[in-house]
Amino acid sequence: MIMEDTIAAIATPPGEGGIGIIRISGENAKKILDTVFAPANSTIVENRKMSYGTIVDPFSQKVIDEVLSVYMKGPKTYTVEDVVEINCHGGMVPLRRTLELVLKHGARMAEPGEFTKRAFLNGRLDLSQAEAVIDVIKAKTDKTFDVALNQLEGIFSKKIKEIRKLLVDVLVNITVNIDYPDEDIEEITYDKLEQDLSLVRKAVAGLIKSADTGRILQEGLNVAIIGKPNVGKSSLMNNLLNEARAIVTEIPGTTRDTIEEHLSIKGIPVRLTDTAGIRETDDLIEKMGIEKSKESFNHADLVIFIMDSSRELSQEDLEIIEHLEQQKAIVVLNKIDLKQVVFCEQIAEMLPKAVIIETSMEKQQGIDLIEDKIVDMVYGGKVSQSDSVMVTNVRHKNLLMSAEKSVDDAIEMTKKKEALEFIEIDVNSSYEALGEIIGETVQDDIINEVFARFCLGK
Amino acid sequence: MIMEDTIAAIATPPGEGGIGIIRISGENAKKILDTVFAPANSTIVENRKMSYGTIVDPFSQKVIDEVLSVYMKGPKTYTVEDVVEINCHGGMVPLRRTLELVLKHGARMAEPGEFTKRAFLNGRLDLSQAEAVIDVIKAKTDKTFDVALNQLEGIFSKKIKEIRKLLVDVLVNITVNIDYPDEDIEEITYDKLEQDLSLVRKAVAGLIKSADTGRILQEGLNVAIIGKPNVGKSSLMNNLLNEARAIVTEIPGTTRDTIEEHLSIKGIPVRLTDTAGIRETDDLIEKMGIEKSKESFNHADLVIFIMDSSRELSQEDLEIIEHLEQQKAIVVLNKIDLKQVVFCEQIAEMLPKAVIIETSMEKQQGIDLIEDKIVDMVYGGKVSQSDSVMVTNVRHKNLLMSAEKSVDDAIEMTKKKEALEFIEIDVNSSYEALGEIIGETVQDDIINEVFARFCLGK
Repeated sequence: MIMEDTIAAIATPPGEGGIGIIRISGENAKKILDTVFAPANSTIVENRKMSYGTIVDPFSQKVIDEVLSVYMKGPKTYTVEDVVEINCHGGMVPLRRTLELVLKHGARMAEPGEFTKRAFLNGRLDLSQAEAVIDVIKAKTDKTFDVALNQLEGIFSKKIKEIRKLLVDVLVNITVNIDYPDEDIEEITYDKLEQDLSLVRKAVAGLIKSADTGRILQEGLNVAIIGKPNVGKSSLMNNLLNEARAIVTEIPGTTRDTIEEHLSIKGIPVRLTDTAGIRETDDLIEKMGIEKSKESFNHADLVIFIMDSSRELSQEDLEIIEHLEQQKAIVVLNKIDLKQVVFCEQIAEMLPKAVIIETSMEKQQGIDLIEDKIVDMVYGGKVSQSDSVMVTNVRHKNLLMSAEKSVDDAIEMTKKKEALEFIEIDVNSSYEALGEIIGETVQDDIINEVFARFCLGK
Repeated sequence: MIMEDTIAAIATPPGEGGIGIIRISGENAKKILDTVFAPANSTIVENRKMSYGTIVDPFSQKVIDEVLSVYMKGPKTYTVEDVVEINCHGGMVPLRRTLELVLKHGARMAEPGEFTKRAFLNGRLDLSQAEAVIDVIKAKTDKTFDVALNQLEGIFSKKIKEIRKLLVDVLVNITVNIDYPDEDIEEITYDKLEQDLSLVRKAVAGLIKSADTGRILQEGLNVAIIGKPNVGKSSLMNNLLNEARAIVTEIPGTTRDTIEEHLSIKGIPVRLTDTAGIRETDDLIEKMGIEKSKESFNHADLVIFIMDSSRELSQEDLEIIEHLEQQKAIVVLNKIDLKQVVFCEQIAEMLPKAVIIETSMEKQQGIDLIEDKIVDMVYGGKVSQSDSVMVTNVRHKNLLMSAEKSVDDAIEMTKKKEALEFIEIDVNSSYEALGEIIGETVQDDIINEVFARFCLGK
């Protein structure tokens, strides 16, 4: 399935660098290359062979840039079509001028994601694989990247196809029993049906369960650090930044009263917010401290509440403790290198469900325990850290939930031994929803929406 | 001359895009590729053939990315050495991970410009050609790019070599006359010597003359728009921006009281500053208007002073007129669509050397005249707009000036008929200075300085 028109775009990130690439795809790709490219040493451009030469405007004979070009004959290419890549100097002018020349000689400007869209429409990638391409590019940490690369390589799709296979078997059985009730075939029993559907339900539910972790890997874990002034908030922030590979240091917060840092803790992208950074400098805002902290509870996936264990609990500490959501809190008793007056047991009495960790930022003790705890909370003991299948895409999660709902309904009816015809409808809905994930039963507008997320040139 | 170690770097601009390239150069390039790259369809990586596969960590067998790789055997490569390019997904993680793996298996991180430095050290580019590479990448307009590309293609070097050839002839003549004064050879006359040296002087001076234009093409022309409030400053700015291809719109000025816009007028990069942007909003600063305008005179290459021709000249106008440097001023009489009370002749009497243009921003009349005048002033009638040789590099200009000085001294001594031995010293200095431009007689520290300007991966 070759598209009728040839597309072109700059495929490298915008900006200045050693090399910038113009990518062309479609049946005119080779013809366009032959028109604008003058190879230095030969007149024939061989398939897949990188050749040196100049881009020359055929009308003015003006040299546009010195380049390396390669022509890759379809169907074994990124888009399945004929593809040309021109490696220009990585500057704005040579890339723009070369692209303009290419557009003048038979290509049109590609839309964002259109190369990958063609890979999908031409059957080289299924929809969830195609979606993974942009996740691979945008991944900020190793773990996020690994999950995306797995998806790109089709491991997630394989899982979906396995579940669909189970549903097909069920559908075939139902259909045969409806259409040929009198034939000599194995009669489907409601017990067997319930059993099969429960298997599907379990697999789907497992994937949905992974979506929480998947979302965090995709979007980052929001961690808020709260506590009174001078208990060690900045030291904790700095220690975590030092230990981890900082993604970007010191991104200014969206508001002036928070400091936000992006880092990676064992492959998990983390957005660390010190909500009360300004409190230490301003009396008026000091009073707003508790308000601010409460607000941060709602936005954070995880709250690190840090206290000075060498001082008695203050009214402010007690107020924070009262408002803390224990399930998503790590309580840090800092300054254990000093004479300790607040102890774990005491806090554990007030916050029985919270994790409590003793640290000394001064002596860099206990920071690794905080990191381990963060990792535990993300994976929740549910998902191993190996390259397992994980749902990272909201579209996929919604479709899985819709598939689960239909299977639930089908199971319910099976229990009530209702007519197979009714059960078949729900089983079929579930099958369709899963098909939409990999793009087998998907609408054009959804496809367009998927690829609108892409960058130009991909 | 192959370097002993193998270097690697990310060669594409930083950021997210469809493709990102890891470039490797040196004798281990192929070995490293064989170690980290698993081709999908064959086990042999052919010279210059783009092949699809995966980057795999040989120890953990972990897949790092899906890539296209190409190995290019020296000496017909960018660096003259063996070169490998790995086209990864254009994201931070795949590029970083692939680069880390490459560095682990025998390459070291390249310094900025080191690939091009090797092209120079290995004799594929002379120094001025190598310097042009970064100008090609950083060029902001077509004209700037063309001049840089010309230089990269060796047209500037050829000119330098021609001048050096003249000097060599002179030197040979002098030497022969000194060493074999009694032999039966053509005796050098002081007349002939002066004649030859004058030719050199003229050629060198011509290049130096082009450096003013060259600098503007490289760094941009600083144009300040001044004038009272409501005379049409913003309209002029907007009209120029509309007509020209804006490079970047609305870059905030370095100070808050200027608006700075970057645009290209017929290939000339222009930095347009509205110095008095804030005057219209603040009384106190209003009073600083003249001060500000005076200051801008000093920084600007060109001042556009705009007046309302429908109103009598004010004290402020007269003050500006008094301070205007006429040679670098364009005076614009705006609003000629209204009843005109200030006329060209009147202004020409006060500013006999300034260019005066009548416009109507309202009716978009005269803007093209302003543009033409800007172009005229840059090229100064001295340099044609074709792809002529032009000095754009301060290092080159300084060396040319030093060469000119030495030739001047030599001519002076020739006129005085001083001993050939003394003249020879100056002619030789001139020859050496020109040689330094193309890197034939250049010190290591200068080479290092040249390549420190480069970006990583080039």
